[in-house]
Amino acid sequence: MSRIAYVNGRYLPLSQAQVHIEDRGYQFADGVYEVVPLYRGRLLDEDPHLDRFDYSLRELQIAPPMSRAALKLVLRELVRRNGLSDALLYFQATRGVAPRDHKFPAKTKTAFVATMRRSRPPSAKQIEEGVSVMTTRDIRWERCDIKSLNLLPNLLAKQQATVAGVFEAWLVDDDDNITEGSSTNAWIVTSDGKLVTHDAGAAILNGITRQRVIKLMEGEGLTFEQRAFSREEAMRAREAFLSSSSSFVLPITRIDGKPVGEGKPGPMTRRLREIYVAAALEAPVVI
Amino acid sequence: MSRIAYVNGRYLPLSQAQVHIEDRGYQFADGVYEVVPLYRGRLLDEDPHLDRFDYSLRELQIAPPMSRAALKLVLRELVRRNGLSDALLYFQATRGVAPRDHKFPAKTKTAFVATMRRSRPPSAKQIEEGVSVMTTRDIRWERCDIKSLNLLPNLLAKQQATVAGVFEAWLVDDDDNITEGSSTNAWIVTSDGKLVTHDAGAAILNGITRQRVIKLMEGEGLTFEQRAFSREEAMRAREAFLSSSSSFVLPITRIDGKPVGEGKPGPMTRRLREIYVAAALEAPVVI
Repeated sequence: MSRIAYVNGRYLPLSQAQVHIEDRGYQFADGVYEVVPLYRGRLLDEDPHLDRFDYSLRELQIAPPMSRAALKLVLRELVRRNGLSDALLYFQATRGVAPRDHKFPAKTKTAFVATMRRSRPPSAKQIEEGVSVMTTRDIRWERCDIKSLNLLPNLLAKQQATVAGVFEAWLVDDDDNITEGSSTNAWIVTSDGKLVTHDAGAAILNGITRQRVIKLMEGEGLTFEQRAFSREEAMRAREAFLSSSSSFVLPITRIDGKPVGEGKPGPMTRRLREIYVAAALEAPVVI
Repeated sequence: MSRIAYVNGRYLPLSQAQVHIEDRGYQFADGVYEVVPLYRGRLLDEDPHLDRFDYSLRELQIAPPMSRAALKLVLRELVRRNGLSDALLYFQATRGVAPRDHKFPAKTKTAFVATMRRSRPPSAKQIEEGVSVMTTRDIRWERCDIKSLNLLPNLLAKQQATVAGVFEAWLVDDDDNITEGSSTNAWIVTSDGKLVTHDAGAAILNGITRQRVIKLMEGEGLTFEQRAFSREEAMRAREAFLSSSSSFVLPITRIDGKPVGEGKPGPMTRRLREIYVAAALEAPVVI
């Protein structure tokens, strides 16, 4: 079955899904996006994703492409037409088509496209043995809280990781603190057993999976801190993991080639992945 | 006459100029661009623009879309088909179409599009009386030397300027130095008569007009410095101006509402604009 995309009001075979070259997304990265996981037929944290989508749009003064109710219908129709039950729903909105000019155009219609693809979850081996990360300089702009299309620094970091043969790059700011990964949030369990992740703010994207994990930790009565942590503190951590919409909670067992703790996924990471998956399965089935 | 664009090998009416939604330019801003002015039938500094285009591509490991000779032919054909003699030629190259993934795709064909539009040079009034700028925080990433599509911070700054009713926003870094404008380079003549512009490096885009102005100054025996200058130094400047491919050399007579010098374009600025235009008219006519 050929994949179906949604492009400015129409469902089209992906091969025919096109936008105008003067869409400001193409010339200026003037837009925002979201990725919502479909897990065993369940849309995970759809409303929190749509809340963040609204936030990103609002921060850039881009008009919402449609009502939330309409957007949910589009996503469900896309799920139906693509016939997948484990997938990632990707959608983006841009400020629309206008003659190229840095200034916001007076009147444009927000452009909206959505696609869907089979999910590529971490392998059983990656979950069982953990993955490796490297650290690299965080060279991004100062509004990482907006989930914008300006992803070039993230691409460069991910590519560095790929070339180095590791799963992810952790980004290190001017104060030698780890902000987050190129497309995932970063977590450690400190040597004295505290869960730590960078505080939300302009320096990181406040991941929906990150927020879900925090809620689950609260439910479990686990103590955690949202604060900056240094590369050096990460190297001494007992456990480390990443969170993202596509990887959920994934253990990290090496940072810059050095084993984390005993070099195996730790008990807190395992427990958090377990309860994350259990909670995901409680979401209602949409297909 | 409807405008003609060049899109991945074809000349098309602009209204039909489309790219695939999975072009990495649209989802990731994974590409670079140039704007070459056509001034009275002359392409200005075409080779330096193409040199910078090559530099940007190389820094991002994007394969050139075609040879320089072929690219020059495309630009000339676009000029011919659009029948304009005062225009801006815009072209961009992206890493091509691939299923969405941060990693560089193994095999893609570089996507290349080019458009042309009538130039909107500064008005006679703006040239005679100068324009106003405001200052705002430089929140961009750390590789501003690459002319990439990641322009959201530039758009936000330009829009701030537009809302404030001024021509341009000058960007101020963490050390209170002015790096450049949102789409122009920034210059001052200090209170003791020295021409100063920020040094080239990762903090600014090394403008082709900036480089041309430097060459012209050298020819005139003028002394100048390429170094950081603070907002405070700018407020005490005798003259100020901006340079860009579309505005050439344009006097600035107010910074954050305060007059520069006597609030009128200064003699050095006037002289530089004069010799810039004279040099531009020496370029060969292409149409």
